[in-house]
Amino acid sequence: MLEKVDLKKKISKAEYKEMIDRLSERLGELQRQARDLGIPVLILFEGWDAAGKGTLINELILTLDPRGFNVYSIGEPNEEAVMRPYFWRFWNKTPRCGRMVILDRSWYTKILNDRVDKSASPQEIQKVFHNSLSFERQLSDDGTLIIKFFLHISEKEQRKRLEKLEQDPATAWRVTEADWEHHRQYNKYLLAIEDMLQQTDAECAAWTIIEAHDRRYAALKIIATVIEAMEKRIAVAQAELEAKNTISVDKPLAGSGLSKIFTSSILAGVDLTKNIKDAEYESSMKLYQSRVRELEHIIYNKRIPVIIAFEGWDAAGKGGAIRRLTQHMDPRGYTVIPISAPTEEEKAHHYLWRFWRNVPKAGHIAIFDRSWYGRVLVERVEGFCRESHWRQAYKEINEMEEQWANFGAVLIKFWLHIDKEEQKRRFEERMANPGKQWKITGEDWRNREKWELYEKAVDEMFFRTSTTYAPWTLVEANSKEYARKKVIQTVVEAIERKLDD
Amino acid sequence: MLEKVDLKKKISKAEYKEMIDRLSERLGELQRQARDLGIPVLILFEGWDAAGKGTLINELILTLDPRGFNVYSIGEPNEEAVMRPYFWRFWNKTPRCGRMVILDRSWYTKILNDRVDKSASPQEIQKVFHNSLSFERQLSDDGTLIIKFFLHISEKEQRKRLEKLEQDPATAWRVTEADWEHHRQYNKYLLAIEDMLQQTDAECAAWTIIEAHDRRYAALKIIATVIEAMEKRIAVAQAELEAKNTISVDKPLAGSGLSKIFTSSILAGVDLTKNIKDAEYESSMKLYQSRVRELEHIIYNKRIPVIIAFEGWDAAGKGGAIRRLTQHMDPRGYTVIPISAPTEEEKAHHYLWRFWRNVPKAGHIAIFDRSWYGRVLVERVEGFCRESHWRQAYKEINEMEEQWANFGAVLIKFWLHIDKEEQKRRFEERMANPGKQWKITGEDWRNREKWELYEKAVDEMFFRTSTTYAPWTLVEANSKEYARKKVIQTVVEAIERKLDD
Repeated sequence: MLEKVDLKKKISKAEYKEMIDRLSERLGELQRQARDLGIPVLILFEGWDAAGKGTLINELILTLDPRGFNVYSIGEPNEEAVMRPYFWRFWNKTPRCGRMVILDRSWYTKILNDRVDKSASPQEIQKVFHNSLSFERQLSDDGTLIIKFFLHISEKEQRKRLEKLEQDPATAWRVTEADWEHHRQYNKYLLAIEDMLQQTDAECAAWTIIEAHDRRYAALKIIATVIEAMEKRIAVAQAELEAKNTISVDKPLAGSGLSKIFTSSILAGVDLTKNIKDAEYESSMKLYQSRVRELEHIIYNKRIPVIIAFEGWDAAGKGGAIRRLTQHMDPRGYTVIPISAPTEEEKAHHYLWRFWRNVPKAGHIAIFDRSWYGRVLVERVEGFCRESHWRQAYKEINEMEEQWANFGAVLIKFWLHIDKEEQKRRFEERMANPGKQWKITGEDWRNREKWELYEKAVDEMFFRTSTTYAPWTLVEANSKEYARKKVIQTVVEAIERKLDD
Repeated sequence: MLEKVDLKKKISKAEYKEMIDRLSERLGELQRQARDLGIPVLILFEGWDAAGKGTLINELILTLDPRGFNVYSIGEPNEEAVMRPYFWRFWNKTPRCGRMVILDRSWYTKILNDRVDKSASPQEIQKVFHNSLSFERQLSDDGTLIIKFFLHISEKEQRKRLEKLEQDPATAWRVTEADWEHHRQYNKYLLAIEDMLQQTDAECAAWTIIEAHDRRYAALKIIATVIEAMEKRIAVAQAELEAKNTISVDKPLAGSGLSKIFTSSILAGVDLTKNIKDAEYESSMKLYQSRVRELEHIIYNKRIPVIIAFEGWDAAGKGGAIRRLTQHMDPRGYTVIPISAPTEEEKAHHYLWRFWRNVPKAGHIAIFDRSWYGRVLVERVEGFCRESHWRQAYKEINEMEEQWANFGAVLIKFWLHIDKEEQKRRFEERMANPGKQWKITGEDWRNREKWELYEKAVDEMFFRTSTTYAPWTLVEANSKEYARKKVIQTVVEAIERKLDD
């Protein structure tokens, strides 16, 4: 998913100036509150070489009271550290109550390098992730606020920066052969980083990706993220103090809502002008539809289950895409499962229960029209479930999908994307068409008002649930034909890949 | 640790009769409350063949309103189940709100068999444990109360029962060749079971060992355990209801305190008459003390860290044992770290911080006089920390010790055990000796009053933290000489085993 992040974001000098003072003041207040409440804060920075960790850590600490924090740079372990278990030096640097620790690199650095240069086995990698998560969970359970940043730049930007540093005699020494070596392996690192971000993205210690091409944008996003996280943690601590022995859950927060300005990263970058010519559409649909039918029989014989989930904006064309996909399929081999509000019986169980019940038998295809992702989309945005519950859901969903994938299932997940104007056009068209009026309700119009909230939720969903075993496919759907073709083509290719395994 | 469990416990017919009615009534009430509060309850029974699962499940359900529960027997998966991911059939059986599900065997059964007959790889075993824990955590996070019983009988008892079943024509069919095969592999199963209990003992779904030789004792312990667990879960639900959106933490429970009658399992079985003759003591101490010094140099050269923790009753002789252990050691190679109440700086950090800081360098020996186990002993019993915190601590401690062991450390943990009378004798002796009076404070006498609470805490500590990588050694310490010899011998043997690896 990292390659889809929109790195073009910028903030002008004037905007920056206007905001930075306000943010600094707020962060200063929060730092004092955290000190008085005895909250330890641990902030770590990971990221590409030359992504600007040093500069950005500086920007952050300029807003802080210097008596309240320590910055540690994590390099190669010294002799004292090598002679002790890996986490010893990190335990030694944990913040005490009321203090802040900022780490330039962390326990994740070594394993990324070891992985790319193949000196770590898959078991060792798993072990390090496991130990990292338990370290973070232990600190968090004890009250420490943990904030993890990953500074992201593109391969091109990295090369540009390394070259620039080299050309300046004052900074040339900072570019080592290792930096260039890492740069040449950018794509290997990209895979390793994505996997690391997925596997170590815990509820108590989530990763925040920072688009780091523009220094001002990156600095403000970092500071705003720290502010929001501290506001939440402080609200919990205050509620605990008030209620002694009780913990307030999901108290609505008087947050400054700062993160709003840092809008959707992935959806914003989608090219919705994508289209397809009629003739090409006709011919490729014919081809893919007959291929899907063949594959349906092959997977039946090979006992491979296929699970397809459709999500997307209202009126994005999920129904039409499903119809075109299944048009020539053998109805005995697939089921379409429309997901709407849960029944009484479903409500009486875990929200994943109804999806587990509908796991297809090996050799069959289940097509979900909306899915278990409702938990982190509509339930989140409409407040149908507690924040702690939808936050948990990312992990729960990943665990479920991983079990399905390990069983041998092909998992395909579509997000059908249209823009707000296109949706409006389609709604009006439906209203004007007596045969389609039933499709549009007041709720659909109301949902439009929460478009930005949904965008944010979709973006976070992509980040947290696009896994190696169950990746998301983003479908540009302003053109219905383009979308339908991309859907069926993706299904064909995913099944063929599985057969080649 | 299972082999140390005292299986001789019995309850007389009269006692049973007197208690069962009271318990049934209470459980009936709780079942109604759980129904009204919409709490799902999941109870599973694992255990040795012929341990009496069927009989005991019957005893339990006789106390329940039959409209409120389902019992499912988990056998080999049928064709429907084989065609779907492993947890599909278990998800299908999860209780809905307000209902109770009782499982005769569970998701743990298959992996135990597969492990002993070697058809599962270590990775597969880890995967199943991981998936089991995530299944249980997901249900628990959603409000389900999970109770896991393991019915324990000895090898001898199992043989007796299988023979008896075989002799009776009415029950002979129930004994299969597989049962005998399992019986012959009792010791292999024992190891597999212990590892399973350790690795899947979660805070949200802890195992309870049931001593199942005596049916009446087992039945009452099961029912009492269910009662206590439901009382706690219901108290949380009621507090949630009252305070809407807040969760009460560790509200003191108006529990019936039933579990008190099911006292210490492991400590109770310790043979405190063990002794050693003076001459043997002298000669073996001489031998071991010089061997320890040799080993100290060997581990220094091989860079093996050794971590030794001493716990035990007040006046059990920890100090004396440590002195005899270190008497002839090279002081540059070891440190004794006495642990008392934490300093201001230590209190401002995670409770494990001070132990992490004191991890010895590779090649050195750290001897902790009292240790990180204070969290689940004195802090638990004296109420110095919340129940949720000491419950978490079992896992946190296991994770820490596992990291140390994986780094290559030898871990040795002693519990020095004396009985209450011996402690009194020693206290009085110290009081009478002007040179030792300082060793006895009012607090020591007060601690004695909580002897039974400490026993319970020690027992639970053994169960939850006696791991393959860091086992507990129980030292019979009514005879100081016997204890000192066992301590030094254990240290010598543990280090030698490591050198043989």
